[in-house]
Amino acid sequence: MTSRIAILGASGYTGAELVRLIATHPGMEIAALTGERKAGQEMAAVFPHLRHLDLPTLARIEDLDLSDIDLAFCALPHATSQEVISALPRGLPVVDLSADFRLRDPADYEKWYGQPHAAPELQAEAVYGLTEFYRDGIRGARLVAGTGCNAATGQYAVRPLLEAGVIDPDRIIIDLKAGVSGAGRALKENLLHAELSEGTHPYAAGGAHRHLGEFDQEFSAVAGRPVRVQFTPHLSPMNRGILATVYVEGDPHAAHEALASRYREEPFLQVLPFGTLPSTRDARGSNFVHIGVIGDRMPGRAIVVAALDNLTKGSSGQAVQNANLMLGFDETAGLMLAPVFP
Amino acid sequence: MTSRIAILGASGYTGAELVRLIATHPGMEIAALTGERKAGQEMAAVFPHLRHLDLPTLARIEDLDLSDIDLAFCALPHATSQEVISALPRGLPVVDLSADFRLRDPADYEKWYGQPHAAPELQAEAVYGLTEFYRDGIRGARLVAGTGCNAATGQYAVRPLLEAGVIDPDRIIIDLKAGVSGAGRALKENLLHAELSEGTHPYAAGGAHRHLGEFDQEFSAVAGRPVRVQFTPHLSPMNRGILATVYVEGDPHAAHEALASRYREEPFLQVLPFGTLPSTRDARGSNFVHIGVIGDRMPGRAIVVAALDNLTKGSSGQAVQNANLMLGFDETAGLMLAPVFP
Amino acid sequence: MTSRIAILGASGYTGAELVRLIATHPGMEIAALTGERKAGQEMAAVFPHLRHLDLPTLARIEDLDLSDIDLAFCALPHATSQEVISALPRGLPVVDLSADFRLRDPADYEKWYGQPHAAPELQAEAVYGLTEFYRDGIRGARLVAGTGCNAATGQYAVRPLLEAGVIDPDRIIIDLKAGVSGAGRALKENLLHAELSEGTHPYAAGGAHRHLGEFDQEFSAVAGRPVRVQFTPHLSPMNRGILATVYVEGDPHAAHEALASRYREEPFLQVLPFGTLPSTRDARGSNFVHIGVIGDRMPGRAIVVAALDNLTKGSSGQAVQNANLMLGFDETAGLMLAPVFP
Amino acid sequence: MTSRIAILGASGYTGAELVRLIATHPGMEIAALTGERKAGQEMAAVFPHLRHLDLPTLARIEDLDLSDIDLAFCALPHATSQEVISALPRGLPVVDLSADFRLRDPADYEKWYGQPHAAPELQAEAVYGLTEFYRDGIRGARLVAGTGCNAATGQYAVRPLLEAGVIDPDRIIIDLKAGVSGAGRALKENLLHAELSEGTHPYAAGGAHRHLGEFDQEFSAVAGRPVRVQFTPHLSPMNRGILATVYVEGDPHAAHEALASRYREEPFLQVLPFGTLPSTRDARGSNFVHIGVIGDRMPGRAIVVAALDNLTKGSSGQAVQNANLMLGFDETAGLMLAPVFP
Repeated sequence: MTSRIAILGASGYTGAELVRLIATHPGMEIAALTGERKAGQEMAAVFPHLRHLDLPTLARIEDLDLSDIDLAFCALPHATSQEVISALPRGLPVVDLSADFRLRDPADYEKWYGQPHAAPELQAEAVYGLTEFYRDGIRGARLVAGTGCNAATGQYAVRPLLEAGVIDPDRIIIDLKAGVSGAGRALKENLLHAELSEGTHPYAAGGAHRHLGEFDQEFSAVAGRPVRVQFTPHLSPMNRGILATVYVEGDPHAAHEALASRYREEPFLQVLPFGTLPSTRDARGSNFVHIGVIGDRMPGRAIVVAALDNLTKGSSGQAVQNANLMLGFDETAGLMLAPVFP
Repeated sequence: MTSRIAILGASGYTGAELVRLIATHPGMEIAALTGERKAGQEMAAVFPHLRHLDLPTLARIEDLDLSDIDLAFCALPHATSQEVISALPRGLPVVDLSADFRLRDPADYEKWYGQPHAAPELQAEAVYGLTEFYRDGIRGARLVAGTGCNAATGQYAVRPLLEAGVIDPDRIIIDLKAGVSGAGRALKENLLHAELSEGTHPYAAGGAHRHLGEFDQEFSAVAGRPVRVQFTPHLSPMNRGILATVYVEGDPHAAHEALASRYREEPFLQVLPFGTLPSTRDARGSNFVHIGVIGDRMPGRAIVVAALDNLTKGSSGQAVQNANLMLGFDETAGLMLAPVFP
Repeated sequence: MTSRIAILGASGYTGAELVRLIATHPGMEIAALTGERKAGQEMAAVFPHLRHLDLPTLARIEDLDLSDIDLAFCALPHATSQEVISALPRGLPVVDLSADFRLRDPADYEKWYGQPHAAPELQAEAVYGLTEFYRDGIRGARLVAGTGCNAATGQYAVRPLLEAGVIDPDRIIIDLKAGVSGAGRALKENLLHAELSEGTHPYAAGGAHRHLGEFDQEFSAVAGRPVRVQFTPHLSPMNRGILATVYVEGDPHAAHEALASRYREEPFLQVLPFGTLPSTRDARGSNFVHIGVIGDRMPGRAIVVAALDNLTKGSSGQAVQNANLMLGFDETAGLMLAPVFP
Repeated sequence: MTSRIAILGASGYTGAELVRLIATHPGMEIAALTGERKAGQEMAAVFPHLRHLDLPTLARIEDLDLSDIDLAFCALPHATSQEVISALPRGLPVVDLSADFRLRDPADYEKWYGQPHAAPELQAEAVYGLTEFYRDGIRGARLVAGTGCNAATGQYAVRPLLEAGVIDPDRIIIDLKAGVSGAGRALKENLLHAELSEGTHPYAAGGAHRHLGEFDQEFSAVAGRPVRVQFTPHLSPMNRGILATVYVEGDPHAAHEALASRYREEPFLQVLPFGTLPSTRDARGSNFVHIGVIGDRMPGRAIVVAALDNLTKGSSGQAVQNANLMLGFDETAGLMLAPVFP
């Protein structure tokens, strides 16, 4: 039995990544695609790499017939997303990839996104989409809120350490290196090839990055007390990949053991042998996360490094994983693609 | 019924790409891996991106038990390959990815590779592995010779034009831009990141590149007369991808029609609308070939551009496609992975 | 005696490159900078790499006092350039980097740029800025028209061959690979890092690229008869650099000798030994051109390859070289910076 | 009066960078070049980007006549360097770019480099080459020890903070992103383009990187007590550039003020306005260092980010700067080249 899927906002990178993954998914077929500014165009014109697929023409959302759709992925900009989802049929399962439903508290949303939430009742209902930690809620959810890609990477490295109580929650620094596709297909000067290639630089440093809202919410919930981390994202001249280098205080071996035992049964989480650290290249194009731990020469300090592909495990792969749960498929269906290296 | 596969020479890029593709193939499982210098190591140590797979340890070829192997891919260096394959059990189907069996004439082999062939009887038996043009022979073959990756790209652009007689066979120029993974994982100064990135340059120009042996053999066979092309390969600072820009003389629309009609039923060959030209990025990580044709402002001259991924359709994907035929699988089994963009 | 320089349109890449070169020029100082949309900003905000320099604030052109300016570089978009230059004081020497004054015939301008020229008298007066071939005219010119960067590269490879009559003028194919900075700092989807990196593709193929107007004008003038070339530009994933691979018919050694003798006394033109071909990396950041020639295996066919930096020798370095002539400096003043490798 | 310069070990990247810088230096000329394995070759064959220069042929060190040399740069591998320098004429000023003379304590050398020092008397005599902090010593030195490129970057960010006493010396974390040219031209699998491009990963983490020896020595000397930092270098897919993101505890504005006042008169040190952070692209190809400070949302924590070009300010530019002092030139002679962007 094949599930009929709609992708709202299919003209961006996460939309294209959803199409890529669903193309070889054994139980999903793409029944509708939307793209407001590109409505009427074929996907092959917008994304020539998808030319071999037989896909619906990009439509406007208001022109869709959603009556026979089994699940919608919503890959729209934040703020737009809450409006669109509010107007969808109540019974339609939705996986949202925007930032609109990640924060449970309306005050947090307003603080980080600068405007009041337009659909607070949906916000209350949404389940946070970090699959390995919200699996049960996701299975029965109507609305799942995909996590931030940086937020996911940091959490994979830190949550088990807080759960196990093996690190000092007041001494967590997340230094993150992100590929450029995470910034999307928007026309911004700082995303031009000539600006970005051959350089590395921090952005939204010092506590300004919105994914801190997710870190605060989630780490505090796990620790049962307020937790605030330092977080400095950097742009690295590569298309895909996030590497989070996390500095923590605690026993390195205990940290490694906490991660290894927490993820032992998880199909997508690969904890490397103690002392081995990962590279983004080894997760590229896949739904896998590689995590390593090393001890510092200073006793009681550890470095935890997590690497994943921001478009796959950091957004669209995670979304498909959650949709698998919501639709009753095997959680890994369509997602066991091996990383693409070199 | 799952076929048991051996990969001889699994520590190079084409070996790793074979593992990547077979990892999600519905009918193949990897039963043996060899790597002479890395024998005894786990693949996860040699290629960390394959860490999630349960793979055999790298062995020496002489230590393998091949009695229960259904097919072997041979991804060894040329010259080595002919020795190894000569020593394999006679009944074992082999897809060779080296240059050793591409040229049918022993004199041609000696001319282009600088030494006599050590297994001329195998050379005579081998079927050239350009699937779309040797499908019937491949299906029944014991030994299939994978094509050169540049040679495949040029042939996809040119063969139908020669078959249809719509171009002048004495006026063919193939200007080719290749990603660096085609040169393999060898330790050469000119393959260092600092040497290659941020630059473009030709190599083996003027008639020196060995893939000309394949062009000569194949184009002459198709045309029924000697055909010699000009061929200038360039290194482009990207990991994967080959773009062949082919200058031909003939009617551009006839050229487009020849390609479109020849490839209409081919699952991996995408002929773009007339006037649209392809990019390597749109084939990356996939088994697809994108081909476009445009007319020049000078009447009677056309430009044909073909793009593919050298590691997939240019070598390992082609090899799996051929193995599918040899083992009785659907030809596209395991190969419909969508390109990875961005 | 220091010349006071104005740069009109200093917020783009060629403007910034002019500042970079003039920063260590022994006889020029920057007295005025304009940038319409960024007027009022410091250059350090627009181009942080120029932070160490003491530069004028970006102004609007109409707010400039040009009375004490000795020479103006005009790095504005085409069409804008002709308007602005028409309104400048008649006695002010100008080096224009736009396309507005490259074509001598108003009909050619209209054909290639789609609109009538607004200042045909200036167009008639302008001297084409390919220094090594128009040196005398440039020395006394009021207005010099900088060449297209692709047009310069192709001409360095081909002009001496036409001058010497050693090639067939009806059989010239220029296959060109260009870095992305040549497209400027404009916000276009196809210039985003995620779109461009890890891929190569042709653009404006088949006779559509506007630099063909320059090739037609110049090659015909040199040959004394109409010459039309084939020209296919490609984008290569690098910031700087143009490599022109030129296929010609004629004796390869004669071609090499024609280039070597023509450029023997030229300080920026490096003709490599016969059989050695250049790479863009070896000209990066410099005003040098590297040219190589190799013979094809087919007698009577040669491949000529020229490499330069599009922002330096292809535009801003050429502009400074021309300004040196106009202002009476040594032609190489400020331009002997060695290429930056790696 | 022109100084005659020898470069021992001119076939690596730092050697080539020395040649590039000296090429436009007003008071130095290159009188001798050595390269053991490439002796007898022209530099144009080893580094084609230097083809326009009239340079001596690469020689063996033992074949050099050093009697008329005014200063030697030694760009040899560590361990080799100490042997070679021991054998040089006593009166010849030397700037060494290896690691051999950076650590003053022979025990430290043995600890970090795994073998006893072969020239402890020279080690005792050598002056540490961080120009802005050892200027007086360097001026009169016979032997100057160039710093590690990572060590220089971290020190520029941290030393003024320790001097001013505005940070907690026990809470310093240096997370560093380095371009690949810092690893040199050695043939290592992990330096291949296909391995490095499109990925980011840490290396020598947890206290293993040898530049920690320099941090320990220098920071402890400045603070007047033992200081140990955490240091995690990462490889970023770019050729040139080091970005050090330094996490410190102390008042951010005090940190900014300490840096700004310390570097106010330094020609190569650019402290950005508070809250602005640098990018490596803006220092590329130059001898400048860009430093920025931002406060974290958590009071009392600051992030200091320093960016420089590893081959210029991080090694060869620093070496020329030191040689300028030793030879009596203006300290900035030949070094005011503007960064190359894009």
